Amino acid sequence: MGIINLDRLSANPLLPEVKDAMIDAIRLDYGNPSSQHKLGDQAAEALDHARDSVARLINCGVSKELVFTSGGTESVNHAIKGVALAKADKGKHIVTSNIEHNAVLRSLRRLKMSDYKVTSVPVDKYGRVNPDDVREAITDETILVSIMHSNNEIGTIQPIQEIAKITKEKKVIFHTDAVDSVGVVPIDVQELGVDVLSFASNPFYGPTGVGGLYVRRGTNIWPLLDGGVQENNKRAGTENLIGIIGMGVAAEYAVRDLESRMVQAKRMREKIITELPDYIDEYHVNGHPEHCLPNLVSVSIKYIEGESVVLMLDEEDIAVSTRSACAAGALQASHVLLSIGREFADAQGTMVITFGLNNTEEDINRFLTALKEAVITLREISPLYSSKNRA
Amino acid sequence: MGIINLDRLSANPLLPEVKDAMIDAIRLDYGNPSSQHKLGDQAAEALDHARDSVARLINCGVSKELVFTSGGTESVNHAIKGVALAKADKGKHIVTSNIEHNAVLRSLRRLKMSDYKVTSVPVDKYGRVNPDDVREAITDETILVSIMHSNNEIGTIQPIQEIAKITKEKKVIFHTDAVDSVGVVPIDVQELGVDVLSFASNPFYGPTGVGGLYVRRGTNIWPLLDGGVQENNKRAGTENLIGIIGMGVAAEYAVRDLESRMVQAKRMREKIITELPDYIDEYHVNGHPEHCLPNLVSVSIKYIEGESVVLMLDEEDIAVSTRSACAAGALQASHVLLSIGREFADAQGTMVITFGLNNTEEDINRFLTALKEAVITLREISPLYSSKNRA
Repeated sequence: MGIINLDRLSANPLLPEVKDAMIDAIRLDYGNPSSQHKLGDQAAEALDHARDSVARLINCGVSKELVFTSGGTESVNHAIKGVALAKADKGKHIVTSNIEHNAVLRSLRRLKMSDYKVTSVPVDKYGRVNPDDVREAITDETILVSIMHSNNEIGTIQPIQEIAKITKEKKVIFHTDAVDSVGVVPIDVQELGVDVLSFASNPFYGPTGVGGLYVRRGTNIWPLLDGGVQENNKRAGTENLIGIIGMGVAAEYAVRDLESRMVQAKRMREKIITELPDYIDEYHVNGHPEHCLPNLVSVSIKYIEGESVVLMLDEEDIAVSTRSACAAGALQASHVLLSIGREFADAQGTMVITFGLNNTEEDINRFLTALKEAVITLREISPLYSSKNRA
Repeated sequence: MGIINLDRLSANPLLPEVKDAMIDAIRLDYGNPSSQHKLGDQAAEALDHARDSVARLINCGVSKELVFTSGGTESVNHAIKGVALAKADKGKHIVTSNIEHNAVLRSLRRLKMSDYKVTSVPVDKYGRVNPDDVREAITDETILVSIMHSNNEIGTIQPIQEIAKITKEKKVIFHTDAVDSVGVVPIDVQELGVDVLSFASNPFYGPTGVGGLYVRRGTNIWPLLDGGVQENNKRAGTENLIGIIGMGVAAEYAVRDLESRMVQAKRMREKIITELPDYIDEYHVNGHPEHCLPNLVSVSIKYIEGESVVLMLDEEDIAVSTRSACAAGALQASHVLLSIGREFADAQGTMVITFGLNNTEEDINRFLTALKEAVITLREISPLYSSKNRA
């Protein structure tokens, strides 16, 4: 297509091997994994195989602990609402952070309409939660802590292991939204010590509309979708088998290639951050310098509107984003950027650059050159910028 | 594969044109419909096109009234829980029927755990609801009536229009689970007068794991999945675009071919019912003789176990079912069959034969012959049958 895709959080391309597996699955006309005849047997085998592959990616030993869903959003809704409803007799208090994804925020807002109480802990200027704040926020009424693994706008990775120690001690269920982490950085549910973990297939080059939910055995959680007995009674509905097969293959390659992908991504991240001063001035790089995703750079550029940059770069066939695509329709400034102390105007001038397989150094060069032009053009017409330079 | 598929409720094959469209979509690497650059534009167009095609299938004039979901189960859960939660301040009473699908039954059971009350109206021996029973069941507390359009085990079609007149008069939201009807028989949401209608793509030869929910404008309903602003703020989560494109194409062919498909199905149904006496005796055909799906025959055969027949026919490469695949893991006798007055033993001896495109008269001949053999063999070892014949 000739378009440079530096908006991978919005949509990663499928791996060629994932495409092949999905196309084969389409041609094969699988039956229903739940039916009792041969047509169903092949489907059930394919489903089991995909489950094993995905289970390996997160080191979920018992593949029964893994539920396939329709994506990260369903996983997060299932996790939060499922625990909240199952544990309502114990209490109605939930602890979260100020920088969660809309799927978490809005699931919690929905629960508040049913008398749940939510305490949201702050983050530091790098977007990190202090585990002590989580400890202090937990009360006798607390049934769930939901803190994301990595942030989709600034890339900061949270101290999940430390938080898990606290929730274990306090006997509170811990959910982490790991949608932007699984398949991108090493995720081991045993090591992390979380009870529930949400993820999706597209961040590791599987199809959109497919995700997973890890539920540690013994965790008290209701299904979000009630009906048939699929997914070990945890998620009713005939499976999106074609998508799940794609996710399984994507997981196999993610296990094999995770290290090399991270090395490639880190090199690009380094290149952007190192070379950025040669192209623009007056900007902040957001997020934690070390505890961060390798495949994301967030830059708040003064005296410009991020949306205008997106449109100008689109003219040059370069796809970037100002924030997550899920929030693209929303007009408010990013709550994540405000939470780490960015001013409203700087938040509006933020670019989120995400990259991965098939991106080249030349892509980054073209992006930086186009960004420079866009920033110059936009600042020329910015009243804030000109008044500042006149002063 | 050489297997005769007479278990279409479990899994219909994809139309060749649906396969082609999905394979094209996989190769094309669509972006994210919500993103703001060119990669997203193509995806957004494909999504709009599919929505228009599916909207036409149910005569939903305003395509904004159509929400894409991960399948019939999600649609039903969304409909029932979404209305129940949104209207909780008005009341917590719901009216349903005794023969609903598990997705409805278990969604309602879940709501009962949160103090909702459910009145379930009976059906006659053909499985039909009497609209007057629905009228009588509605109280001042009633917020929702949920009655299925057609039954997935016996094929009976309900008097939805008459019930809709009552719910309109009583100002109660009316949801119908039309998963086994849309794309199989004519469905026109304007004519039916329902407020919310659930359906899925596979019954009309689209992929599994994709469905739709019609929500009449102005209906008070909460999303089931909270998060991003997708689907006009009614269903968060990055779309399963490949599946949705498949559903769109399947809908176009369903609109074009509905009549001829019905004629073909009715011919097979007629053939089975007419010729069955030449092969077996002591059976009942379940469901209403006229108000019924054209593509389903349900037969309760005395002195046999349906599951044994399924296994024996599987040996002959013929796929049939004893009931819906969603319930295959469950061991109880079908609540549907008990509700129409079948005894427990007869319910266990029930075969659900469903057919469609690619099935031939020869398939039916082979099925009837194999069924005869299976019934003879099973009755020979049945203590009930031999004691009866000895008596």
